[in-house]
Amino acid sequence: MRFVKGHGTENDFVIIPDLDGEVELSAAFVAAVCDRHTGIGADGVLHVMPTKLSPEVADQAGQAEWFMDYRNADGGVAQMCGNGVRVFARYLVDSGLADAGEFGVATRGGVKRVRLAETGDVTVEMGRPKTFGESVATVAGKPYEGLHVDMGNPHLACVIGDPVAQLDLSHQPAFDPAVFPEGVNIELLNPVGERRVVMRVFERGSGETRSCGTGAVASAVAAARLAGETTGTWAVEVLGGTVTVTLEEDTSYLAGPAVLVASGELNL
Amino acid sequence: MRFVKGHGTENDFVIIPDLDGEVELSAAFVAAVCDRHTGIGADGVLHVMPTKLSPEVADQAGQAEWFMDYRNADGGVAQMCGNGVRVFARYLVDSGLADAGEFGVATRGGVKRVRLAETGDVTVEMGRPKTFGESVATVAGKPYEGLHVDMGNPHLACVIGDPVAQLDLSHQPAFDPAVFPEGVNIELLNPVGERRVVMRVFERGSGETRSCGTGAVASAVAAARLAGETTGTWAVEVLGGTVTVTLEEDTSYLAGPAVLVASGELNL
Repeated sequence: MRFVKGHGTENDFVIIPDLDGEVELSAAFVAAVCDRHTGIGADGVLHVMPTKLSPEVADQAGQAEWFMDYRNADGGVAQMCGNGVRVFARYLVDSGLADAGEFGVATRGGVKRVRLAETGDVTVEMGRPKTFGESVATVAGKPYEGLHVDMGNPHLACVIGDPVAQLDLSHQPAFDPAVFPEGVNIELLNPVGERRVVMRVFERGSGETRSCGTGAVASAVAAARLAGETTGTWAVEVLGGTVTVTLEEDTSYLAGPAVLVASGELNL
Repeated sequence: MRFVKGHGTENDFVIIPDLDGEVELSAAFVAAVCDRHTGIGADGVLHVMPTKLSPEVADQAGQAEWFMDYRNADGGVAQMCGNGVRVFARYLVDSGLADAGEFGVATRGGVKRVRLAETGDVTVEMGRPKTFGESVATVAGKPYEGLHVDMGNPHLACVIGDPVAQLDLSHQPAFDPAVFPEGVNIELLNPVGERRVVMRVFERGSGETRSCGTGAVASAVAAARLAGETTGTWAVEVLGGTVTVTLEEDTSYLAGPAVLVASGELNL
């Protein structure tokens, strides 16, 4: 089976091209591919299928030729992944399946519009963040207040005074289960300049990660609110690099690098 | 650049074939390849070079056609790696560079004899373990007595009463720096049957790992001594699988699975 490996700010993926829609990906196979010692290793798999041949998303076929069938590293299906769709778009263009410029990608979370040049950053439209009230995350015994933001998945984005570089995120921060009954992704951030923040993120079910696309947008929303703004472009520094978030009145965009590092054949 | 990925009991390696001895591997490139998010990811690189074209080991050319130029994940050179040489041998046979059976592999630690069938386990001769006195490793505040074994690299193999599965090996165990001025690899083991042990290992400079070939041999030596034996075949269960260690009066052998899981081209 052919594969390509790529990453966006160190969120890494194994891409499995399936241009005729004939590959059955079992959860066990995905987990084997994503195992970092016995497989290739990745945060998830991007299975490339023709939208019109994918019953789950066939209604998106008029707007998006290719479906990103996203799988988590444990083999489970997922709706969307902001950095994943950027790497997916890079793959489509580099392999000649799409022209550089702007196009749609089908996902379980609906069609996502992406935009890219032949080289350079890839931008994905992330939709309108929904904001709710404030809540508290407790990291190593210390409470931090943050903003509840919904990006399709739940976030608690906390602008804090303590330097995020010094936080111990080796364990799950505590949060209010009445507000987040299905868990929450927790961002801790420090403003470090004009519309610029440093972010660390503890992802629901994964622990601390090198980058999180929806978390970067939620962080920009929380930082903008503190600055009394609702629109504008924010730089978000994550452990794996820097992404750019643009907030508009009714939508948002995530931009950043997306690179392909290897390709070949799996013998799994 | 072509690559192959493989592992032996989850000790994983990127193999870089260089049949004409023309590739200059910089430390930075090796580190980029071994990065688990932005590269392929591995515990080390096995650079395949013709022995006669490698000045470091050209004197071994009469006994071994191919040189395993081993690099650690940080890019530094290393002498030898027991699981690495087993995966290296698997690659030579599967790619037609060597015939199944017994042959020599050149390493910075001298020629290593390997033996393998077309399929199945790969065995490598590990030489004669040197044993010294006893010393103490302290894990999470609790001292454990063990045997100092030298396999070319230093080991402290401790047969203990507490279940090794319950030890906290997230931090460096303490040891006597007067005995081990350059650090030591520490094995903790439980006998679990007739000539069978469960082992966990904290590798010098790496932390806990899924497997360690020289550590498995050192563990068999320590367990055999406790059983009043100096020869025999021991099964050593590690986190990544099971290896078999055979102790003879003047040498030792390490056997276990070695598999290739992917191949392709790097774009790094």
